Amino acid sequence: MNDIKNTSKAFLPEPTLRRLPWYLAYVQLLNARHIEYVSSTQIAKEINVDSSQIAKDLSFLNIKGKTRIGYEVKTLVKELTDFLGFKHKHTAVMIGAGSLGGALIQDIGLSQYGMTIVAGFDVNPSIIGTSIRNVPIYDINELAEKQKSINAAIAILAVPVEHAQDAANKIIESGIKAIWNFTPYRIKTPTNIVIQNTSIYAHLAVMYNRLEVSKDLKK
Amino acid sequence: MNDIKNTSKAFLPEPTLRRLPWYLAYVQLLNARHIEYVSSTQIAKEINVDSSQIAKDLSFLNIKGKTRIGYEVKTLVKELTDFLGFKHKHTAVMIGAGSLGGALIQDIGLSQYGMTIVAGFDVNPSIIGTSIRNVPIYDINELAEKQKSINAAIAILAVPVEHAQDAANKIIESGIKAIWNFTPYRIKTPTNIVIQNTSIYAHLAVMYNRLEVSKDLKK
Repeated sequence: MNDIKNTSKAFLPEPTLRRLPWYLAYVQLLNARHIEYVSSTQIAKEINVDSSQIAKDLSFLNIKGKTRIGYEVKTLVKELTDFLGFKHKHTAVMIGAGSLGGALIQDIGLSQYGMTIVAGFDVNPSIIGTSIRNVPIYDINELAEKQKSINAAIAILAVPVEHAQDAANKIIESGIKAIWNFTPYRIKTPTNIVIQNTSIYAHLAVMYNRLEVSKDLKK
Repeated sequence: MNDIKNTSKAFLPEPTLRRLPWYLAYVQLLNARHIEYVSSTQIAKEINVDSSQIAKDLSFLNIKGKTRIGYEVKTLVKELTDFLGFKHKHTAVMIGAGSLGGALIQDIGLSQYGMTIVAGFDVNPSIIGTSIRNVPIYDINELAEKQKSINAAIAILAVPVEHAQDAANKIIESGIKAIWNFTPYRIKTPTNIVIQNTSIYAHLAVMYNRLEVSKDLKK
């Protein structure tokens, strides 16, 4: 039963893992307002998620709410932050340091969520050898060699779509075990590689469609 | 039956809308390689989506595959691009032009997918009055006034989480009908407002968890 405390290593359903940061964002707000307790019903009202779902999601954590009072806000902030891994340092490299990649290197938000980008890699001679916010940009062909000393846990993939698979292959050859894929291309990887797809442009398609439909409704 | 041609205004399921850009990315590759036809079975192999699902998704488009030959690649690229709205110009404003917002303004990828950011808005006096890649940054309190001439369809929300709801309220008051929410905060909006949540930091939580679990498996 000792394993129960070791919650950070349980394999959680992806929808749960995506909701937990919403709860964290909300309880951080409450904490800033010096509110001491919050119930899953209150969180439910704010976040638009069913309160029984919230209780279930939070049951993965090493925290218990008190009947009629709810969860202690401070503890919830701490447990969620720990649990989500936002306090650990995860070393990452940026593969493709062009427009999107360069932009992400400059986003200090990532470091607030536990991700430190230590190097960028590209094919473009005009940016190889330069640096973005003190992050050096190297030739993509140096990835395997540099990785020996960098020992990055995660590679962020932000290359043009036609180079996505090639770049992913280079990442895997270098020994990096996780790829955060910002391209709209579904890269193929061995099953031991962790893949997270974040194609922000695909979200645009959803928004455009909803806007068109709502325009139509007004006609 | 004339409505059938007017496919871009059908309300599509969100999973379909998120998959269509993957197909587009792939058929653009094929097109660049001068490949003329592709079957849903071939797409399925590349994209890791069931071929019957692909055929179903593509049935929303104004395109028909030929038996045993498949879809014409050129036509598929054109229809998908049109259908997804990536060729129309959607005017957007950036609310919060700090680290992430500033980075997104610099991402030319967005304009390739039909989104033009014409202005940024912030509360920080040190960036109000400046510009990022020729996009002027105004005071957030000028949003309603500026919107009269800008007439933006979409507001991109990239403010610190504690200001997310306030900023969303200002967006709605200005008359903008769609919010692309990059904060991890679940903002509350009237039902006529189109919301798309893209909390990239929530994806980090998924990746961190999977990495921890795979480390454990190796012990």
